[in-house]
Parts: sequence; C-alpha cells; structure tokens
Amino acid sequence: MLRIYSMQSSGNAYKVRLLLAKLGHEFQLVDIDLLRGENRTPDFLMKNPEGRVPLLELPGGRFLPESNAILFYLAEGTPLLPDAPLARAEVLRWMFFEQHSHEPAIAAARFWLKLVRGGRELRTHDIDRWLEEGYAALGVMDRHLQRRPFFIDGTMTIADIALYAHTHVAHEGDFDLAAFPAVRGWLARVANEPGHVDMDWRPQLAGQMVSTV
Amino acid sequence: MLRIYSMQSSGNAYKVRLLLAKLGHEFQLVDIDLLRGENRTPDFLMKNPEGRVPLLELPGGRFLPESNAILFYLAEGTPLLPDAPLARAEVLRWMFFEQHSHEPAIAAARFWLKLVRGGRELRTHDIDRWLEEGYAALGVMDRHLQRRPFFIDGTMTIADIALYAHTHVAHEGDFDLAAFPAVRGWLARVANEPGHVDMDWRPQLAGQMVSTV
Repeated sequence: MLRIYSMQSSGNAYKVRLLLAKLGHEFQLVDIDLLRGENRTPDFLMKNPEGRVPLLELPGGRFLPESNAILFYLAEGTPLLPDAPLARAEVLRWMFFEQHSHEPAIAAARFWLKLVRGGRELRTHDIDRWLEEGYAALGVMDRHLQRRPFFIDGTMTIADIALYAHTHVAHEGDFDLAAFPAVRGWLARVANEPGHVDMDWRPQLAGQMVSTV
Repeated sequence: MLRIYSMQSSGNAYKVRLLLAKLGHEFQLVDIDLLRGENRTPDFLMKNPEGRVPLLELPGGRFLPESNAILFYLAEGTPLLPDAPLARAEVLRWMFFEQHSHEPAIAAARFWLKLVRGGRELRTHDIDRWLEEGYAALGVMDRHLQRRPFFIDGTMTIADIALYAHTHVAHEGDFDLAAFPAVRGWLARVANEPGHVDMDWRPQLAGQMVSTV
C-alpha cells in the first residue's frame, strides 16, 4: 500500500491527499508535524534528506519527494494527466509556475502568518515581497482563467490540483481574492468536481488506514 | 522549425539551447534582452504573459513557457528522458527541486550580482538569504551525488541539464563550490558528455538560423 508522509495543514501535502481521494486509492497517512520538528529527526531525514513533506513511500521502500512529482507519478494513466505530449507539457508548465512563482510567496505567507505563532513579527520584512509576488501570480492565473474553465484544455488536471491547494487558502496569508473573479470561479469549479475532499479530510473517514509517528 | 526566445546569459534559456544542441535539432534563436525590457513589450507579452524567457514557439504558433516544461516536451522519446514511470518521476522531482529550492536563490544571486549594474547595492538585504538557501540546495545535491555519477540511474537526463545550467555559473553569484566536491565532479562529467555546448554557444555556429528582434 502507498504511504504518504504528510502534515494536515500543508498545502503541498493536501495536493497528494486530494489526488488520492479523487482516484479512490487506499493509502496510509503518516503525520509529520513540521512545527514540532518531526521532519528533522534522523529517521525522517534518512527517508527524505530535504526534510520536507509530502513524501511518497512506495512498496519496496523507495521514496519520492516533491509534491508535483508525486502528482505526476500517481496520475499517470488517469484522466487527470492527459496523454498528448503538448497537453502534458502544459500541465508541467503550470506545475513549474506553481512551484517557482506561486507557492514560495502564497504558501510562505500563510505558513508564517497563520501557522507559526509570532510568525508575523519574525518575518515582517518578507511580507511585502510575498504579497507582491503572490499577487503577480494570481494575476497571471486570473488572465489565463478568464477564457477557460480549468488550466488545460477544459478538463481538470493535476495542474488544477497543484494550484488549488495553496490558492484556496491564500486568504490565510493575507491575500484578498476580490480582484481575481476568474480565480474565484475556478476555485468553486474545482471544489465541485467529483471526488473532491477538503483539506481536513483524512483517509480513515473513507475506511482507509492512518497512523501517526 | 522550432523557435526559442532566449537571453544568452540566462541560465534557464541555456538549458533549452544545451538540450537542442545535444539532440542535434535545428532551431531559430530569437534574442530577448531582459535588461533592456524586451520581455515587457506588448508583442512579447502576447506570446508569454509572464514576460519570461525561455519561451518555445511551436510550428502553428503555439507557445510553451517554463524552461523545465520545455525540456520535458523536447526530450520525450530520447535517452535524456527515461521511459520508466518512477525514473520519470525522479527526473521531475529534481526539476521541481531546481525551480523551487535552487534557481530562486542561485540564479537570483548571479542575476543581481553579475548581470545587473549596481545590483549588489539594490538587493543588499536579499543576498544573505540567497546564499543561505543556495548553499542548502548545493548541500542536498552534493549528498545525492556522492554515490551517483548523475542525478537519476547513472545516465545523464534533463534533470542534470536543469541543475547544471545555474550551478556551473554559481560562482558568478558569490557561491564557492569548494565544499561540494561531488557537485564539482558532476559538473565536469556533464561538460564531458557528447554534444555538450557552453553558455556562449549560438546555433549559427552549427549552420543553424539565428535572428534578433
């Protein structure tokens, strides 16, 4: 069975839970609390030297980090990852955009403003940069979505999952989506797709296994 | 014929030139000088609303941005992108690492310290952050390469191209690779692979076409 090392409040980890729920896969969830340093233990660093979640453990004991690489691997052969080479490249284009130009600002703002106690004071001088970069990314997304229901070719893909995870909680990092109506419409469409689960969902609710370290 | 919008000194654009040279593809190179704002013209923003290079223009007028998505698209079916699903996922894992944890620090430092006149003074308070994040990324790479000649399965892939592009000029952003012997050995191996071209190479040297805006 697949095993996912995950933190429930991590947007990157939520991507993987959302995909697995949509695909109906059974999987084991192992909670790793970054705020308690559980990602810096020798045991976890043996599994992922970068000390990050999510981390996929495959049968046989191989490990795959990087949320978007995990999405690509797990979605292969499903409707959430198109077969056509150019469409696949466009999926990757938006997933690289997400990791380069979106997540570092939007997820960082939420992490420090919402999840870390006293984070607003600790990272004061970064907040303006995160807001500037994050709003630029939201503008790119909004212009793209003004004429499309989803990011690629009119049907939901893992590019939408990758971008949804942090965007739908962007307000927790002080972002106001009022000026991005196409993004707001897309968030609602993604949440209405079959098999959607929210960030709080855990697999035991579907009769699947869960464990904690 | 493929057309690449590129800046010669951009590491992200070099990735695409290096891949195309190794594959022996003919392509047209269109120079876009970010330092002169040629990426912010209405004409270029029509092609890529993000205003970034590299940008791939396909026959028929479709555009694909994001250097690593371009690499993945162009390497499909070649030895530089393995077929096995897990190996492909590992290629993507390192390319997402590159765009999330490596390029934003290492390329930003080089851009502001080497390419932008007065950049060191303009971005003083970012330099320490870039060095800290960039050295962390180099440490992850060095530990991985201590037991492997290349990033995935012993043969060169587009993950090596993606990581080589900025790493081999990291010293131009004040990074000292002395403490990363495995990275230095890998840089030399990549440069010795068949079909390698350096950052200065332009396709007209191989009898191919070139144009400027």
